[in-house]
Amino acid sequence: MADVIRPRTLKGFRDFLPEAAIAREALIATAVAVYRSYGYAPIDTPALEYAEVLLGKGGAETEKQTYRFDDHGGRDVAMRFDLTVPFARFAAQHIGELGTPFKRYHVGPVWRGENTQRGRYREFVQCDFDTIGTESVLADVDTLLVTHDMFTALGFSRFSVRVNDRRVLNGLLERLGLAEHATAVLRALDKLHKVGAAKVAEELAFVPGADESRVAAILDLAGLVGTNEDVLAALPAVVEGSATGEAGVAALGEIAAAVTAAGVDPARIVLDLSIARGLDYYTGMVFETFLDDLPDIGSCCSGGRYDDLASLYTNQRLPGVGGSLGVDRLLTAMEELGLVEGRRTAATVLVTVFDDPGRMDAVALAAQLRRAGIAAEVYPDVRRLGAQLKYADRLGHRLALIAGPDERDAGTVQVKDLASGDSEVVPRSEFVAACRRRV
Amino acid sequence: MADVIRPRTLKGFRDFLPEAAIAREALIATAVAVYRSYGYAPIDTPALEYAEVLLGKGGAETEKQTYRFDDHGGRDVAMRFDLTVPFARFAAQHIGELGTPFKRYHVGPVWRGENTQRGRYREFVQCDFDTIGTESVLADVDTLLVTHDMFTALGFSRFSVRVNDRRVLNGLLERLGLAEHATAVLRALDKLHKVGAAKVAEELAFVPGADESRVAAILDLAGLVGTNEDVLAALPAVVEGSATGEAGVAALGEIAAAVTAAGVDPARIVLDLSIARGLDYYTGMVFETFLDDLPDIGSCCSGGRYDDLASLYTNQRLPGVGGSLGVDRLLTAMEELGLVEGRRTAATVLVTVFDDPGRMDAVALAAQLRRAGIAAEVYPDVRRLGAQLKYADRLGHRLALIAGPDERDAGTVQVKDLASGDSEVVPRSEFVAACRRRV
Repeated sequence: MADVIRPRTLKGFRDFLPEAAIAREALIATAVAVYRSYGYAPIDTPALEYAEVLLGKGGAETEKQTYRFDDHGGRDVAMRFDLTVPFARFAAQHIGELGTPFKRYHVGPVWRGENTQRGRYREFVQCDFDTIGTESVLADVDTLLVTHDMFTALGFSRFSVRVNDRRVLNGLLERLGLAEHATAVLRALDKLHKVGAAKVAEELAFVPGADESRVAAILDLAGLVGTNEDVLAALPAVVEGSATGEAGVAALGEIAAAVTAAGVDPARIVLDLSIARGLDYYTGMVFETFLDDLPDIGSCCSGGRYDDLASLYTNQRLPGVGGSLGVDRLLTAMEELGLVEGRRTAATVLVTVFDDPGRMDAVALAAQLRRAGIAAEVYPDVRRLGAQLKYADRLGHRLALIAGPDERDAGTVQVKDLASGDSEVVPRSEFVAACRRRV
Repeated sequence: MADVIRPRTLKGFRDFLPEAAIAREALIATAVAVYRSYGYAPIDTPALEYAEVLLGKGGAETEKQTYRFDDHGGRDVAMRFDLTVPFARFAAQHIGELGTPFKRYHVGPVWRGENTQRGRYREFVQCDFDTIGTESVLADVDTLLVTHDMFTALGFSRFSVRVNDRRVLNGLLERLGLAEHATAVLRALDKLHKVGAAKVAEELAFVPGADESRVAAILDLAGLVGTNEDVLAALPAVVEGSATGEAGVAALGEIAAAVTAAGVDPARIVLDLSIARGLDYYTGMVFETFLDDLPDIGSCCSGGRYDDLASLYTNQRLPGVGGSLGVDRLLTAMEELGLVEGRRTAATVLVTVFDDPGRMDAVALAAQLRRAGIAAEVYPDVRRLGAQLKYADRLGHRLALIAGPDERDAGTVQVKDLASGDSEVVPRSEFVAACRRRV
């Protein structure tokens, strides 16, 4: 035996075999179709950029995780660790040509050399969508409707897109004299679902000036539940007198009205004042998406509104709103909920090959099926039928065509349903119709 | 003004703005649909691998062009420079689980730090398809039919997939006593289309033992033209007595028969004994694809059959056959031939917004269109109609919906065709049908 290089992938990296790749491709195709139906257009940016461009804003943690090296020309380069920073750079560079409003989606791999414990990968696909250059609540509405339509199209029936607006809490904090501690409050509230109200109250007590009644007022707001109408009825009192808070409440009211106008079940897009999203970055609407059947998996699509996307690269202010789909998390969820077909092939029909004279016949049958829009694969080798059917069974073809010497003499084809096991013999002129009936 | 980081990409790298990204996405979606219709399944592999794995076989040139560095764990890693080497590693690692025959496609970016003169990029997408684990000519046939179907689906009507089999030339060289110089002969023949027969004859004359009559015999073979029948009639005499050559001629005969069986115009898949493809790698069928209207652009889809994919990583022999689509080259060709729509949006309809009360109405109208399968975008801001229509014109929407106070009072909607400029006012109950008629 010759010495060979041991075939292996790097720690934290993975191959996608057909079953997983087909599931991921279907998920992304669904997301893309929904993005497009709302007028989001695709863009792409390089995997490699100047490290200065990618890391300009990043903290020490980002820098530590980034794959960074000197290229052949001695340039200090890095692999992108998300799609947000490249989008900011892209927007600053091209916004004059693109014009506003500008709606884009971007699907692509990103790389983070982080600790691979806890099932994290060092390479994963992000799937982001944003509208920039407008402060209109209609762009927020698009973001939420896209998320709703996407989860519906993926086959989820029990989910909720949970919506808040940062300005409501900010309005309350203004009233409580705690405006300057908004970030600390947000970080505490962001853990509410994980650790519960009592622990959050303990953390809030450390915020300077946050006495018991103020902590209670904050937790009361975060605890507001009910129908969208109930929540909207309770909010004005919370923010009374704060222009910021009132703007937030008005925006939530418009979002609820738009959900109704779009004919969407209001149980799928709900106001939830506990949604915090700890990132300083967001300034208005924020949202997360949860699956009723898998609450512990966390948010599967999140995002919000920001004041200025690209301040690092341009003095032109670019407000916007967008979201990011958790591709890996959703795939895990879809698998657990039985929403993935688990096929290893994209073909519907396997055309078996009985003998040498049957080979050209198989090519002809498959071509006819494809012209009718039915994906058909020809088994390449003359092997016993059992082996060919086992292959179809393993890969997940729905039907097998069998045309041996008897069928050829009789001018017929046998159509075998691989799930039920039953089969029918039809005239050659009718086999396409017979296949179509069964798929 | 605050100091900003200058937004820019690295030399040899590029952004895809919506117009280019939409065109590329459409091209890839078409290729993927054709691959799937033949039973090829998607796979994916990491962008980063052990340098040893990727470079095990590469020559000095490959090594010089490869982005290679030490990762956080001190591992010697590299970015993939093609999809073939990762596929070989993937196949060696997983073939036990995958089984044979195995048909895969793989679409993904690759990176080469090469000289960027001549319009070459350092990051580009490859789009490969292969069948491994079988020596059947039916797998060769699939490869050629996929290529044919892909070019047809992309809108090309004047193209040819030009097919040869290495074994025919090898058979002739056996007869001429030049078998050991096959590689040198191939390299010379590979230039035939660029430099012409006289220059190739000059180069062939340097091959030891290649006298004038032998050079003439080689060039006669490469010059064989005519219908597939003519070529097949002439070949047996060329390879007479050589088992290798006869196997090649038989394979070409079966390919021609399969093209007919599949109902494909034989002018689209033609036997062409001048196709050499200089790579040592190929051992049987080889093919290239040319556009009649842009001959100088070169082959837009090429490939062939190889004896053993993954010998570097496993002792299991994996013969196969496949091809690779020239994504950038094809996009250039499609643009030159007017096969690209040049739109900057994926949405068909722009729903304009006239005034504040009209905003929720716009959300409702757009939702109705989307439910009918028509992509609809809501303009987010209340601006004068002229500005909104200019936006639609710039992006490439086909229709605009206008529902101002007059239309709302009358229970109507105005549907404006942006290409022709004409418009009609229809009852609200009919606007979806009116839009559908016009797209």
